[in-house]
Amino acid sequence: MSSSAPTTDYAQQAISAMGPNINPRLRTVVTSLIRHLHAFARETSLTTDEWLAGVEMINAAGRMSVPGKRNEGRLLCDVIGLESLIDGLAHTTANASATESSLLGPYYRPDAPVLPSNSSIIHNPAPPADGIVAYLYGRVYNSVTGAPVTDATLDLWQASTNGLYEHEDKEQVDYNLRGKICVDGEGNYGVYCLKPTAYSIPNDGVAGDLLRLLDRDPMRPGHIHIVAKHPSYKTLITQIFDRGDKYVSHDPVFAVRDSLVVDFVERKGDPKAAVETKFDIGLVPA
Amino acid sequence: MSSSAPTTDYAQQAISAMGPNINPRLRTVVTSLIRHLHAFARETSLTTDEWLAGVEMINAAGRMSVPGKRNEGRLLCDVIGLESLIDGLAHTTANASATESSLLGPYYRPDAPVLPSNSSIIHNPAPPADGIVAYLYGRVYNSVTGAPVTDATLDLWQASTNGLYEHEDKEQVDYNLRGKICVDGEGNYGVYCLKPTAYSIPNDGVAGDLLRLLDRDPMRPGHIHIVAKHPSYKTLITQIFDRGDKYVSHDPVFAVRDSLVVDFVERKGDPKAAVETKFDIGLVPA
Repeated sequence: MSSSAPTTDYAQQAISAMGPNINPRLRTVVTSLIRHLHAFARETSLTTDEWLAGVEMINAAGRMSVPGKRNEGRLLCDVIGLESLIDGLAHTTANASATESSLLGPYYRPDAPVLPSNSSIIHNPAPPADGIVAYLYGRVYNSVTGAPVTDATLDLWQASTNGLYEHEDKEQVDYNLRGKICVDGEGNYGVYCLKPTAYSIPNDGVAGDLLRLLDRDPMRPGHIHIVAKHPSYKTLITQIFDRGDKYVSHDPVFAVRDSLVVDFVERKGDPKAAVETKFDIGLVPA
Repeated sequence: MSSSAPTTDYAQQAISAMGPNINPRLRTVVTSLIRHLHAFARETSLTTDEWLAGVEMINAAGRMSVPGKRNEGRLLCDVIGLESLIDGLAHTTANASATESSLLGPYYRPDAPVLPSNSSIIHNPAPPADGIVAYLYGRVYNSVTGAPVTDATLDLWQASTNGLYEHEDKEQVDYNLRGKICVDGEGNYGVYCLKPTAYSIPNDGVAGDLLRLLDRDPMRPGHIHIVAKHPSYKTLITQIFDRGDKYVSHDPVFAVRDSLVVDFVERKGDPKAAVETKFDIGLVPA
């Protein structure tokens, strides 16, 4: 703290200004936010120019955000690890056998087609020329008893090899690389998809500017999103990552968890896929 | 802190992600900001919905901000006392005889007309029908020696009785209620202006929404902005407030300082003003 810090406690003034007719939870949250933002400004002796630069960054994030299409404010939170913390607070792993959660991300579409197990989510007439088709398979089980979970669905989505999700890319058909895979009667699932490709987070806005200022890389490691649902279990939101991806150690949005990193290995005797990986999914009873 | 808080230190991950080629001051500021924002989220066990509501508030602030015209991000900072703290960090009062600073605010225009002492800044043909003309006067002095400061200029501006500054109001001529008053050869100044009127901060955006949620009043107490300049002294940016204003005890942007509250009293023998107030200004040598 600066030795010349003002003695007036403006944080307390702002906290005391809240009236009696306020949601108690909101009072708790705003009180904590005010205290921490003031502590930050005092600790750094934040200058007027620095503060105004931060305000402009926030205003610019809002200006370029388009509801349902781009959320630059969220992306700013992501690159400082805040979404991963919020996700961790919301989805603390209930037991050691349960699969870890990770970020939902901004590209989820809830209405992907429902497909039987061992289907492909590559709906384009052919995979991209530089794509490697992968077979992802595993077992879905009750993380407390170990019993198979037979009626779960796995909602999967991934970007194509050009780093784009289908809704951002005219070269892909609607819902390409998206699908809800039904788990079979023994709790097993399989799906044909692409070996995931690294891509840059949106880099043309203030989050990209911030990463450049912080001397950081905007490339996310290749990953496949999975939401696992069953009426008797807590919904699992997660991502799996390719251990061979050079960006797996420095994801700009901090979504990688050690237990979610998988190995893609050669697949033999299946003309439909060149590589495969196994990922078992432990669900927590509701 | 929640007992189920995630053990992974995402704040440290985000801090460690900064590369070697970064401005050292930026590293200090961003490190502190990350630590405090993560501490806030952990302390409150911030939920995903609460976080997303905060992100949307930031995005909405940016969407309604127009460079040079409206800065909703700044206003959000103001209503939680952050601008007052930043101002206090930048302008710690050097000695007990120096006049306290306060916020510049968003309505300053640097090119107001230069006027001799005892001029009026009411440039409209007449003051508004509900306006009370006031004579503001005092002495400008060296806060260390007490000697008069004879070549200072006082840049003053205020809202009209409808709560609008001239640049927002078609009923006012250009630079109405703005002027740079020259201090006379004895260090004295006088200016005719309006007894200030309380007005609401812009209340149609997310800062207004926040004040309503926090059960707070958006009305600022009536005030007159003053920037005092002299080449041999530090520039003073301040505001003075009417002690009779019912909002003086709960300014939504926390700009009131006890030493800046003045009494408007009846003015006798001057047909040009109904009330008067004295405000001496102590400047700090540069």
